[in-house]
Amino acid sequence: MLVNAYAAPSATEPLVPTTIRRRDVGPKDVLIEIRYAGICHSDIHLVRGEWGPVTYPQVVGHEIVGVVAEVGAEVTRHRVGDRVGVGCMVDSCRECENCRAGMEQYCLPGNTGTYASVDRDGTITQGGYSTHVVVVEDFVLKVPEAIPYEKAAPLLCAGITTYSPLAHWNAGPGTRVAVVGLGGLGHMAVKIAHAMGAEVTVLSQSLKKRDDGLALGADHYHATSDPATFEDLANTFDLIVNTVSAPLDLDAYLRLLRLDGTMVNVGAPPEAQALHAFTLFSNRRSVAGSGIGSIRETQEMLDFCAEHGIAPETELIAADHINQAYERVLASDVRYRFVIDVATLA
Amino acid sequence: MLVNAYAAPSATEPLVPTTIRRRDVGPKDVLIEIRYAGICHSDIHLVRGEWGPVTYPQVVGHEIVGVVAEVGAEVTRHRVGDRVGVGCMVDSCRECENCRAGMEQYCLPGNTGTYASVDRDGTITQGGYSTHVVVVEDFVLKVPEAIPYEKAAPLLCAGITTYSPLAHWNAGPGTRVAVVGLGGLGHMAVKIAHAMGAEVTVLSQSLKKRDDGLALGADHYHATSDPATFEDLANTFDLIVNTVSAPLDLDAYLRLLRLDGTMVNVGAPPEAQALHAFTLFSNRRSVAGSGIGSIRETQEMLDFCAEHGIAPETELIAADHINQAYERVLASDVRYRFVIDVATLA
Repeated sequence: MLVNAYAAPSATEPLVPTTIRRRDVGPKDVLIEIRYAGICHSDIHLVRGEWGPVTYPQVVGHEIVGVVAEVGAEVTRHRVGDRVGVGCMVDSCRECENCRAGMEQYCLPGNTGTYASVDRDGTITQGGYSTHVVVVEDFVLKVPEAIPYEKAAPLLCAGITTYSPLAHWNAGPGTRVAVVGLGGLGHMAVKIAHAMGAEVTVLSQSLKKRDDGLALGADHYHATSDPATFEDLANTFDLIVNTVSAPLDLDAYLRLLRLDGTMVNVGAPPEAQALHAFTLFSNRRSVAGSGIGSIRETQEMLDFCAEHGIAPETELIAADHINQAYERVLASDVRYRFVIDVATLA
Repeated sequence: MLVNAYAAPSATEPLVPTTIRRRDVGPKDVLIEIRYAGICHSDIHLVRGEWGPVTYPQVVGHEIVGVVAEVGAEVTRHRVGDRVGVGCMVDSCRECENCRAGMEQYCLPGNTGTYASVDRDGTITQGGYSTHVVVVEDFVLKVPEAIPYEKAAPLLCAGITTYSPLAHWNAGPGTRVAVVGLGGLGHMAVKIAHAMGAEVTVLSQSLKKRDDGLALGADHYHATSDPATFEDLANTFDLIVNTVSAPLDLDAYLRLLRLDGTMVNVGAPPEAQALHAFTLFSNRRSVAGSGIGSIRETQEMLDFCAEHGIAPETELIAADHINQAYERVLASDVRYRFVIDVATLA
């Protein structure tokens, strides 16, 4: 099946319209007619070869919502017409101890990414900037009706990436959560942590987005460019969710953690960062990492967002605006997620 | 009260016999006639000025056991003749949120160290290489009879420093614990983790102490000088207790952690170490720090050791051998803790 898509021809050229082949619908597969696809900063890193070699042309996009158009003979979890989503992974080994524990995001041989991964049939997976995708049913999520269609896509990456650590490290009433960075991930972290009942502080470079942050649900907002922030907030937080992928002064942020506090990184720079183990001794602090979430947890997150009326702030664009959108993402000029209207690709 | 002690006259001279003044026994104080004092690597760092400026002469030693010789009028927890111990701290602010939570080791203004700290009366605390010490009763531990007297001292630092993270991070049946470094702390970590029921692996530079490690209770022993160790043990441990205070390749050790595993540092180099946040993403790993343990937990540890027949491996020395012992500690030539027979100071 040949379908329309927007692909990167190389690391240095703009994305261009093209057609790609989707596999036939196997017995456990679901064919999804894609409606909306979010633009994640990772898409840009990847197509530009910043995370390693890429086989071009490559279609990216791992925040996908659409409608089930066809199901394989053995599919039991989805039906034609269902409103569904696909996030950052489309398969995993299903045999390692992590997969067996239902934590396929941490599949030891590596899960199959929604794009730029080697699929079971040996082909390279192609992402959601496309009119259709075929995905094995276990990796397809149900998108509740309560979430506006064009806003649901970013939940599949930005939503789950922040929900998972907030849930795992018990954000809730009585806990103080700091969110570092108010971008696509950060703004979801604020909304979700607030809905969980935590006291939420945004730590952003400047106070430029302060009004936004408070409107999104933050209780406090501080500029990290102001050294007083690091003095005033020492020993304050139970959890810091760092959504920034640029290197930062880990020790300075760690000193903001109170007893048994954790700084969890969901963004990460490729380069090493400096860490003084002594900073970890006080207050028995931890630095951790967290990658997306399991399929079970992603469904839980979607249901949580539906229940609490949470959706990302989005800006809808036509496919021929993808390259401009990339430039704006790189300039932090997006509030807070671009979503491609895939009808414009048809 | 003037008492005999061994003190460092400066950062560069050997320790020498001297006399120091102990305060009068206040209403809540306990006067302890010291019987044994352990030698901790920290003692050496401190007297040599490696951890910051020191007011000389300075008496060190924070692994102290002895007998109660006198109690203040309001003392209720200890009686003359009791077998007691003192560890790394002798007081704390008692008002901060950590003290109120019974976690005085993480006292926010800083607990009062057994030596080289400013006490409530403004004097500098002097440690256990001495015949007597006066300590407020709340910071005096009961040493169970089941622990041989001359072996109890190292439990007050090496014991609690390893017991606390093992207990906090739930070492026990079904968990895999690695202990990095088989020195004073490491050998206690092995004994305690084994007694808790964990599967214990020692990661040591070479296989030189392998027989010792297995005899102490380790199930496995690997040399970190062998690159195969890091391949073979990838994704293996629930908990790594790092007792080494030299810098090491954090990423390499972190890759040995399985899902939700933690590497907790109880030793730490003063310099920054390099950390790639990406290493933390896989398996949702954490790096943490842990400092000694609370008074409540120290008592729990002493009782645990008594119950399980655990005591450190010690080498008893006379006070006039302290300087030689320091050289041997620095050369890693001790199995596994020097203990000063304080009778030789009288």
